[in-house]
Amino acid sequence: MSTTWHRRKFIKSSAIATVGISALTSGIQSFAAPKKNKVRMGLIGVGARGVGHLGLCLRRADVEVVAICDPDTNWAIPNARKKIQELYGNKKVAEYTNGNEDYLNLLKRDDIDAVIIATPWEWHTVQAIAAMKAGKTPAVEVCGAMDLQDCWDLVNTSEATGVPVFGMENVCYRRDVLAVFNMVKQGLFGEIIHLQGGYQHDLRGVKFNDGEHLYGGGVEFGEKGLSEAKWRTLHSVHRNGDLYPTHGLGPVSNTIDINRGNRLVSLVSMATKSRGLHKYIVDHPKGGPNHPNAKVEFKLGDIVSTLIKCNNGETIMLSHDTNSPRPYSLNFRVQGTEGLWMDDQKSLYVQGKSPNDQWEKTGDFKDPNSYFGKYDHPLWKRFEKDASGAGHGGMDYFVINAFVECIKRGVEYPLDVYDLATWYAITPLSERSVAEGGMVQAIPDFTKGKWMNRKPTFGLSDEY
Amino acid sequence: MSTTWHRRKFIKSSAIATVGISALTSGIQSFAAPKKNKVRMGLIGVGARGVGHLGLCLRRADVEVVAICDPDTNWAIPNARKKIQELYGNKKVAEYTNGNEDYLNLLKRDDIDAVIIATPWEWHTVQAIAAMKAGKTPAVEVCGAMDLQDCWDLVNTSEATGVPVFGMENVCYRRDVLAVFNMVKQGLFGEIIHLQGGYQHDLRGVKFNDGEHLYGGGVEFGEKGLSEAKWRTLHSVHRNGDLYPTHGLGPVSNTIDINRGNRLVSLVSMATKSRGLHKYIVDHPKGGPNHPNAKVEFKLGDIVSTLIKCNNGETIMLSHDTNSPRPYSLNFRVQGTEGLWMDDQKSLYVQGKSPNDQWEKTGDFKDPNSYFGKYDHPLWKRFEKDASGAGHGGMDYFVINAFVECIKRGVEYPLDVYDLATWYAITPLSERSVAEGGMVQAIPDFTKGKWMNRKPTFGLSDEY
Repeated sequence: MSTTWHRRKFIKSSAIATVGISALTSGIQSFAAPKKNKVRMGLIGVGARGVGHLGLCLRRADVEVVAICDPDTNWAIPNARKKIQELYGNKKVAEYTNGNEDYLNLLKRDDIDAVIIATPWEWHTVQAIAAMKAGKTPAVEVCGAMDLQDCWDLVNTSEATGVPVFGMENVCYRRDVLAVFNMVKQGLFGEIIHLQGGYQHDLRGVKFNDGEHLYGGGVEFGEKGLSEAKWRTLHSVHRNGDLYPTHGLGPVSNTIDINRGNRLVSLVSMATKSRGLHKYIVDHPKGGPNHPNAKVEFKLGDIVSTLIKCNNGETIMLSHDTNSPRPYSLNFRVQGTEGLWMDDQKSLYVQGKSPNDQWEKTGDFKDPNSYFGKYDHPLWKRFEKDASGAGHGGMDYFVINAFVECIKRGVEYPLDVYDLATWYAITPLSERSVAEGGMVQAIPDFTKGKWMNRKPTFGLSDEY
Repeated sequence: MSTTWHRRKFIKSSAIATVGISALTSGIQSFAAPKKNKVRMGLIGVGARGVGHLGLCLRRADVEVVAICDPDTNWAIPNARKKIQELYGNKKVAEYTNGNEDYLNLLKRDDIDAVIIATPWEWHTVQAIAAMKAGKTPAVEVCGAMDLQDCWDLVNTSEATGVPVFGMENVCYRRDVLAVFNMVKQGLFGEIIHLQGGYQHDLRGVKFNDGEHLYGGGVEFGEKGLSEAKWRTLHSVHRNGDLYPTHGLGPVSNTIDINRGNRLVSLVSMATKSRGLHKYIVDHPKGGPNHPNAKVEFKLGDIVSTLIKCNNGETIMLSHDTNSPRPYSLNFRVQGTEGLWMDDQKSLYVQGKSPNDQWEKTGDFKDPNSYFGKYDHPLWKRFEKDASGAGHGGMDYFVINAFVECIKRGVEYPLDVYDLATWYAITPLSERSVAEGGMVQAIPDFTKGKWMNRKPTFGLSDEY
């Protein structure tokens, strides 16, 4: 995270205007470079999130980290240097730290194949588009778009330049999520009819800190906050919708082949009143009713619920719940004509297999007789040791692995620009639905009809 | 349940037209009869559901069962006679069994104070209105309205006649639900922001049977079905929406004072594809792809999700899920600024009390140190023994008890005509939203503004 990225006032990149539209109908070619043994990587954003990706890249023999970029020379860059020193020793990695636009200089290098973008949300689209135009294939961290047009700009630039985009939705690779994906693909739950997911994560200690320590410990945000508190909290001040849909939506999208034989058609969102963030400030020992931040009016409803209708007749229920005290949960449910799984219960039910009307435990991956033991995904079987110690319970390993392996092989990303655009679109559409009192919103078909022919590519093997 | 009730083709009662509107502004007086020691009761509908109420009435010293009514002389009436013989011996109870309209003759008696209506859904409003016009106060079983106008007719008739209506939502009296109600009212979860509820009940064995036995055992319905399969299944053939909203909505409505300082403002519904009922017929040993019912197209989506926005800023998520194999669950969640309860997990979380980020078990009512032990509602503490053995884990006892006690005391019902109309309205509004592709629907204010002044009456003491 950075001290200055956030100062940019949502100015739209005009880059897209310079891309010729003659290429738009030709679709995205596979990555232009031939197959290769090593990927030369740049990292744009090496804050609390990006430094994790940096570490994973530095560890890989098939990746050469060429350059990093972050305007935050106080915290992010020193932190990244430590990681580089630890894993690369004295080997040189270039640095771009000269303000918000220095990433453009990183992109001018001719010794970089790909970039990982882990910057404040409002920069993702701008930087991904610039990367594509510079011929570098971007992996883009998750969030939601600032505006629906951002999603179109991503897609259109990718189609125009022929450069693919990788969507870094790590929860798609969570071990239980992949096991359930496996169950679905093997027909355990029959035909899928309803899915749930969400981001139920008490972020109050992320949205506020004391400006010196990463989590909690104060009620500061914006200029006085550190790391995510510096920029992420502003979105809770000014916006009301599902601001972070992909952790829930990504995994369930794969399950029902969204953009590959199926698509999201429409959504409605409703938000509760906003209480949690104000209350946190007022109740905090370093806050109180007279703290200046107690005057801030947070627009984000504490819980935003979104219902999505899919072309093949499924519904998806998403929840966004980040301002309240609660145990962490992504609220997953996958339900079909033969049974269902519920993450919160660590349980499933399968007609004719489970005792009548009773939940069964999903069990432990180490137990070959449990459901999770039986359906453990080939990726986890193969890479469990490599993933061990990687961020978010190992999931982050698989994200970087998929990105790198696809570049090396010159094949399509399993989570691509159409997926990213579709998931990102939920946020502005959800904001619009909330603003319009729950009015239903059409979800664009970013594939422009190609979803009818596109084939599933996610999670098909143990390779990436 | 009956063999013939279901034949009536949704003909609207014209009764309402004959009620003078001069009384409409005066509101509903308390029950006209003075306080009394004994309630003289008639039962309209003594099928699988009604016979349970009959038994509870027959057992009470403060109730005299005067008459029963059901056109089904093959199954319902003989069954009810057995119950009467068992509890009343040779004491005479009048019978009205002469077709669908004979309830009107029951209502003409001058020795009946109140009636319990437990008939097929399409009869509830018609019979309740007739009862009010006859000066008998009706307790009405739950379902959803056939049309929004039914709800207005209920309210307007009640206001015009001065006869109150009791809404028989038994889940409001479920022991855990009342304990959580208690927790909310004592502020354990802080300010409530979001609630969930629903009817997740695999009814395939209720919607289909062999015409001779009550549950399952075949794929017949309509004329060839028995009991609920005879009429309830038709609603799944012809309608698509949340057909049975009250078990989820009733309890959460009480929690946030709906119609008493708060109200439901708008809703959206989305339905999944319809697969479960057809599949049940095709997969059943007595069905198969060539069974005539395999040709029936069921309109009801397997899962219907509904989001509701409340005037005081809360949201409610309802689910209707009756066509799929799954363990029973009413899907309750109550979430506030200090914590939340989730029925499915038998768990709650309270900031500052629960271990950080970890669920706590709600515990056992017998354990005074558990949450449920501590917050057990006074009603259950007082009536646990009386309720023991009553239907649906004792809940049904409390429903009849509240109805009878309020009549005896001449006081307002805790679940009244405005509640019933509001809950009933969810069904036709949900159908309309589904039909309109998720379009948001305004929920009428059946109290005509009185909700701003009305005070909570539910669950305030150990009396009823």
